[in-house]
Amino acid sequence: MSPTDAPSTPRRIVVVGGVAGGMSAAARARRLDESASIVVLEQSQYVSFANCGLPYHLSGEIEDRDSLLLHTPQSLRAALALDVRTGSRATAIDRAARTVTVETADGTYDLPYDALLLAPGAVAVRPPVEGLDHPAVHQLRTVPDLDAIIASVDRLPADGPRRAVVVGAGFIGLEAVEALAARGLDVALVELADHVLPPLDAELAPLLAGELRTHGVALHLGVSASAVASADDGSALVTLSDGTRLPADLVVVNVGVRPASALAREAGLELGERGGIRVDHDQRTSDPHIWAVGDAVEVVQAVTGLTGPVPLAGPANRQGRRAADSMLGHRTTPQASVLGTAIVRVFGLTAAVTGASQATLQRAGIPHEVVRTHAGHHAGYFPGAEQVHVVASFAPDGRLLGAQAVGRDGVDKRIDVLATALRAGMTADDLAELELAYAPPYGSAKDPVNMLGFVAQNVLDGTLPQWHPTELDDVLASSLVLDVRSRAEFARGHLADALNIPHTELRERLDEVREAAAGRHVAVHCASGVRSNIATRVLVQSGFDASNLSGGWISLTTARPDLTPTR
Amino acid sequence: MSPTDAPSTPRRIVVVGGVAGGMSAAARARRLDESASIVVLEQSQYVSFANCGLPYHLSGEIEDRDSLLLHTPQSLRAALALDVRTGSRATAIDRAARTVTVETADGTYDLPYDALLLAPGAVAVRPPVEGLDHPAVHQLRTVPDLDAIIASVDRLPADGPRRAVVVGAGFIGLEAVEALAARGLDVALVELADHVLPPLDAELAPLLAGELRTHGVALHLGVSASAVASADDGSALVTLSDGTRLPADLVVVNVGVRPASALAREAGLELGERGGIRVDHDQRTSDPHIWAVGDAVEVVQAVTGLTGPVPLAGPANRQGRRAADSMLGHRTTPQASVLGTAIVRVFGLTAAVTGASQATLQRAGIPHEVVRTHAGHHAGYFPGAEQVHVVASFAPDGRLLGAQAVGRDGVDKRIDVLATALRAGMTADDLAELELAYAPPYGSAKDPVNMLGFVAQNVLDGTLPQWHPTELDDVLASSLVLDVRSRAEFARGHLADALNIPHTELRERLDEVREAAAGRHVAVHCASGVRSNIATRVLVQSGFDASNLSGGWISLTTARPDLTPTR
Repeated sequence: MSPTDAPSTPRRIVVVGGVAGGMSAAARARRLDESASIVVLEQSQYVSFANCGLPYHLSGEIEDRDSLLLHTPQSLRAALALDVRTGSRATAIDRAARTVTVETADGTYDLPYDALLLAPGAVAVRPPVEGLDHPAVHQLRTVPDLDAIIASVDRLPADGPRRAVVVGAGFIGLEAVEALAARGLDVALVELADHVLPPLDAELAPLLAGELRTHGVALHLGVSASAVASADDGSALVTLSDGTRLPADLVVVNVGVRPASALAREAGLELGERGGIRVDHDQRTSDPHIWAVGDAVEVVQAVTGLTGPVPLAGPANRQGRRAADSMLGHRTTPQASVLGTAIVRVFGLTAAVTGASQATLQRAGIPHEVVRTHAGHHAGYFPGAEQVHVVASFAPDGRLLGAQAVGRDGVDKRIDVLATALRAGMTADDLAELELAYAPPYGSAKDPVNMLGFVAQNVLDGTLPQWHPTELDDVLASSLVLDVRSRAEFARGHLADALNIPHTELRERLDEVREAAAGRHVAVHCASGVRSNIATRVLVQSGFDASNLSGGWISLTTARPDLTPTR
Repeated sequence: MSPTDAPSTPRRIVVVGGVAGGMSAAARARRLDESASIVVLEQSQYVSFANCGLPYHLSGEIEDRDSLLLHTPQSLRAALALDVRTGSRATAIDRAARTVTVETADGTYDLPYDALLLAPGAVAVRPPVEGLDHPAVHQLRTVPDLDAIIASVDRLPADGPRRAVVVGAGFIGLEAVEALAARGLDVALVELADHVLPPLDAELAPLLAGELRTHGVALHLGVSASAVASADDGSALVTLSDGTRLPADLVVVNVGVRPASALAREAGLELGERGGIRVDHDQRTSDPHIWAVGDAVEVVQAVTGLTGPVPLAGPANRQGRRAADSMLGHRTTPQASVLGTAIVRVFGLTAAVTGASQATLQRAGIPHEVVRTHAGHHAGYFPGAEQVHVVASFAPDGRLLGAQAVGRDGVDKRIDVLATALRAGMTADDLAELELAYAPPYGSAKDPVNMLGFVAQNVLDGTLPQWHPTELDDVLASSLVLDVRSRAEFARGHLADALNIPHTELRERLDEVREAAAGRHVAVHCASGVRSNIATRVLVQSGFDASNLSGGWISLTTARPDLTPTR
């Protein structure tokens, strides 16, 4: 007997929420079961819209607004025989009677279900800012939000002030900044954390900050918006916690989301500590007739094992598919955890993350070794090679725990490979041996991922002792800094009191190092860590107590933009 | 005691061959052991040159010839204290005495070793073509080859005939074609196999053939060159096995390579059946004092377990590193097998492969199910989305066995992810659940790799019965073809006698299908397999014996360019 013939198969499936996770579930359910009644309740007027595409229509890059509307209730009825009801809000669940109360413009009714899927998504966090109801203030989460922002922008004079303040420098905030800049607005970006894109570790964020400033964006980091007031001309005036006042014709607030789990909570379903609906590996809630997916649920975060919501479109879609499989008795593919793989374009740069950040590992008390590389995204001798700045963490036993990358090209590929490796439990040895596609336009015989593995192997097995950009002050106080770059590079900027011996001269000049070190540790560096690897090995084998600056001068000056090099 | 202090550490290391594998080994050996004598013998005048870059200097894309010369003996002495001897050919090994006989322009000498690494590479196969010593005939493997070809091209009149014949449509042959076309030559490509890029399965190759023809390349497939003669004007005349005669000002022959294992064979080292030097997981040959790496060695091919040479730069580099680790008693990372991941750019297209092809699986008698997808390389609503045409094979238990892809963008990323998944032993379930970086410019919430997993799950667990392009003739003879595309798509070309019912109308028109099928199997298809998945599920659940065309009309018309659609 095939699963779909099982007598327990639900005849009436109700889905609350008609975007990513909910619609994936409804479509999969229909493909598995032709005869079930499938009703999708969506409180807005739009189903299955491309919410990740909103900023790109704002920028004008996606020209046609309709292309964001992937499906309509009509197209879904025709293709999948789904009963999609927009403008229909689920306000209560009667778990005993197995009904959902639905509120519409025309009244309220109770809808019975055999299986209920909750995919209500998330709601925007409303920050404690006075005057947030000012008409210039918007968020960017829905099609009506987008329409309102575009209408505001269209009303601005072409040659008058066009000033936007974006509050929140997360993924959507950064996309909003880029889009508004593309529309010719002067953009100020306000972020409470001390760096843009808080999921990114602080040491890589200055690359994004530099790119934002290059494109004319004013950054206000480590401060919050405290009030929005009306200026005399009707525009807004945003006051920051440091007293700065920013005039604005448009304010876009995206400071994060929280699970839209009120309906579930009121129905008595179990929630996690951070408010997400608790589900098992098959997306089933504490009620065996109710499943939940997407931004509203709690997931287990890979690497740390911590639980909490992770609002990402990819997992939401797959959870929807899994929930449908589960409710229809189909074989499921249980997913134990979420890596949190994410990516954002910031003008010409790409930033991407997977697995645990250093900050997360530190908070969770998980031992790890950090490795930094700056290999080219394709062969160096082929025109246009761009450095991929990678920072990755490894467990002492070699297992990859997380990786982050920033660069102009090839970042998405390396993070996808690393996300796959992370899911597979791969180690530094495995990364070193990965066999990736190489021809000069695409990569290198030693791909950046291989290079990361090589360096991690050397660090983890003790071949290459290293020091980190965060240890700079200690190093300056207690070590000899040996800069093995060329004289020309050294002259362009170096650490105070550093000894410059190009790596090609080191073997002949060990006596100079010995004299200058005078028994101290020798902290070696070059630009990226390649030449200093050779130099550190020369020193260690010659009896010196030496270590290599992880990621070299590039990582150091990126992580410490406050540093003033000696010239 | 650290490994490098071990008393058995070799004091004299000799490396034969100064390119990828040999130079990787020499550099790694030096970093591990500061005190060893390391001599690199290279028969040519060039070490560490970018052989994969040669076609791109021929095309002019890499402007500076010097950028192909990554290192010189001088730079290697300065950085790594290597004794690099160019123009030095190893002619014999005395294994008992542990010496290598070295032949130079100035004479011959014996060089003692404690550890010997053989990295002699491969030699070009010389096909049985009469007149191959004609001065217009070249190969493209070395810097002197490149110089000679460029000199020939430079001698051609700007406005006179500029005709090239390229024999062999493998990776280098295709790169040579593109480069010569970029230099304004009329190029004819001759390939003995029935399709270009023989490692690619025949069904995807027509995409490359089409791209080549679009760029003016004349294809001669399934034929060989049989003779090269001199024309009256001194140019060449290439005669093919089908009698075609092609006038040529330049002939480039690249029909493959074989291991340069003569030195090893004459020294009595064990070779494999296909002439590669036999090595263990640490790259050690049958002589415990001799290691070997690169194109000259035999490797185990992943998936099939067959052994043979796999001439690729990536594995060669990593083998060199591993050999150095092994000879110096350092911890090694044994690599059991080679996936054969490879990639090539053909004008605007990219083709890439990893793992076993269908042809390889068939030859090896390995049961497998083939899945085809054409998902967009990034979100469909974001401008510029290009289809990634993927064909992948899975074992009955779900394990990925191999994948091939062709497309205009995003091909390298998906093959790298699939190569990583393959190395990790991932299954269709794992691919479905991979968490890859998604924002509209980079991918989709359901990445092409996830889509491949979804389809494979459906096929393997019986949810979606499928038929293949190769089965077309049987299907036409015995089944009802149900084309569920739109009327407009159907009108532009369809299979003879196909019934057209758009998938959105199928549920209401099942009686028509029943009548037309008259008890026969229903062979469903749409353009790519997405709509026909829904339709096939409707039919199967309604009691029909139905199956879905894997990859749809796109895969069918690609695999069968001979097909004349009915209009």
